[in-house]
Order: sequence, then C-alpha cells, then structure tokens
Amino acid sequence: MARTAGSHSDITGPRIQDAALRLFARHGYAAVSMRQIAREVGVQAGALYNYTPDKQSLLFGLMQDHMRELLATWAARSQVPDPGAALETFTRFHIRFHLERPDEVFIAYMELRNLTPENHAAISDLRGRYEDALESILKRGVAAGVFDVADTKIATLAVIAMLNGVNTWYRAGGRLSLEQVETIYWDMVRKAVGL
Amino acid sequence: MARTAGSHSDITGPRIQDAALRLFARHGYAAVSMRQIAREVGVQAGALYNYTPDKQSLLFGLMQDHMRELLATWAARSQVPDPGAALETFTRFHIRFHLERPDEVFIAYMELRNLTPENHAAISDLRGRYEDALESILKRGVAAGVFDVADTKIATLAVIAMLNGVNTWYRAGGRLSLEQVETIYWDMVRKAVGL
Repeated sequence: MARTAGSHSDITGPRIQDAALRLFARHGYAAVSMRQIAREVGVQAGALYNYTPDKQSLLFGLMQDHMRELLATWAARSQVPDPGAALETFTRFHIRFHLERPDEVFIAYMELRNLTPENHAAISDLRGRYEDALESILKRGVAAGVFDVADTKIATLAVIAMLNGVNTWYRAGGRLSLEQVETIYWDMVRKAVGL
Repeated sequence: MARTAGSHSDITGPRIQDAALRLFARHGYAAVSMRQIAREVGVQAGALYNYTPDKQSLLFGLMQDHMRELLATWAARSQVPDPGAALETFTRFHIRFHLERPDEVFIAYMELRNLTPENHAAISDLRGRYEDALESILKRGVAAGVFDVADTKIATLAVIAMLNGVNTWYRAGGRLSLEQVETIYWDMVRKAVGL
C-alpha cells in the first residue's frame, strides 16, 4: 500500500519554503492560502503545520533567511581595507547577489507591509545591519579623505536603491553582460561618492 | 423616505478611485474585493459597476492616471535649455512629485504583476516615455560635453531607482527637510553623471 502523501520523509522545510516563495512572488502573500502552498508541494494542508505554525511564520522565515544569507555572504567578502576597493566589491556583490534571487528580493520589498510588528522589526534590524555595512565603508572613505559624501546615511540608502533597480530591468542575454552592467553601475557609484 | 445609498449623485469616480487606491495600497490588489471597495465608499457593490466594469479596470485607471499626471506635470517644467539645470529640475521634481503620492507610487511598482498583458503594455509605454524624458536630458548633456555617462539608458534607470528610494524612508519632520534631501540627492546625481 502506498504511503499517504503527508508521511513521505522528503517533505522537508526547503520544499515548503520553495513553494511558498514561488507562490508569494507570483500572487502576493495575501492572495496565497496554506492550502495552495500544500497543493504546490503535493501534500495535505495539515502536513504543512508539522513544519510551520502559520503563513506569517513562512513569510517571516523566507525574509529572515534571505537577509541572513545576504549578511553572511557579505561578511565573507568585506575584508577589503581600501575604501574605494571595498565600495567596488560591495557594488558588484550587491548586484550579483540580488540578481540571483529575484523572488526573494521581490518579496523582501513587496511584503514588508504584511509582517506582524514584531517580525517587521526583526527584518528591519537585519536590513539596518546591511545598510550599516555599506555606511561603514562610506565613513571610512570620508575619514580617509577619498570620498566626498554630504550625508553617509542618505548616500547608503541612495546607493542601495540604485543597485536594487537592476533587478527590475536586467535580463540575461540582453544588450549588456552582467559584467558590463556591474562596471557601469560601479562607475556611477564611484562618481556619486566623489571618488 | 431616505434615498438608497446607490442613488446619491455624489457617487463620483474620484471617490471610488480614492477608496480603491487606499485599499490596494494597504492590502494589495489581489486581496481586495469590489465588495470591500463599495463598503469603503459607502455604496452597494452593484453601484460600483455603474462606474467601472471590473477591479482590473480600476487598477489600470489608477496607474494610468498616475503616469499621465506625472508626464503632464513634468512636461510643464521641462523647458530648461541647460542640461545640468534640466537634470537638477528633474531630480527635485521627481522626488517631490513622488513623495506627495506614496500610495500611487507604491501601487505603480507593486501591482504591475497584476495587470493584464494589454494594460501592462500600456503602463510600460507611459513609463518608457517618462524614462525617455530623463534620457533626453542625459543625451543632451553628453552631446554638449558636460556629462560623462557610459550608457544613458542605464544611467536613466539608475537615477530613477535612486530617487524612487526616497519614498521608502523619508518622513516629514525627520532629521532632514525635503529641501535638504533634494539637495543631497542632486549632489549625488550631479556627480554620478560627471557634472
């Protein structure tokens, strides 16, 4: 006799997270039900609750994992002493990391409004830590006299917003390679901070 | 005898559009029903259909009106011959216009995915015209030898993305006045194009 759907040992968190990510990105968090996520994974809705208490926890988990991975990946590359070189590394890293995760990025921006206040605060804290990483580069450059930045906090937000924009238009195989796109953006970021 | 709700002569398009805008911005297009919009306006759901054939038309109308107002308002200010002065005018105009319309801006970016292909194409066309307005300034500046821009199309997208970011963090009464924010962004845009 075949085992019932809910009992397969391969019903893992990653499969549920993948399905939730895809559905939230396509239809929006509010329009997706736990039942739909279960159907996408191929299990009964009840089986989902063995993994996650509710849809809010799924959304929060996706956004938290995304930010933690961003912070950890950046931490592994951030040991560049020269502020200009560090800023170039950040620029190229940010574009590439985000282009590789279009659904996660889309959700990170679109679904903030659907987080509970506690979860919103936790994600905002993680985002703040990422912004701090860039701002510390800008401050180092200003302190070293190599950057000309009127307000490092606003420059941080401006640079991140500019780089995030790549996700809205870049398509592999288009007019420009990813390497060319990175270089053009780095040229603009470099000039914007007066380097 | 009191007139029934649906018969009041003040059930105008603007009131329905305002309610739809508020609800779409707060809950997302997919999560809002025509019934909810009717309740927000204070009419029967049926009365809504005297004004609009469906929810898609309401969304499209909101996005189209927003883009047309943006284009018309910019057209009235775009007659600045000097490319540097034109770019400064554009920068300050873009920030102010968008900060004054947070719900419209939010919907313009969040709900593109919920437009039908025809409506999506129409909105993309209007956005393309706005991008062209900025790109024409950049091209004029490059032609005049006052801007140093590697790719005017990408610089256009980068500047708009950077300026759009203001909507995500600026709050009136915060650390910086709107005038100061505009000036800081103009300083970064100016440098980014090599002026």
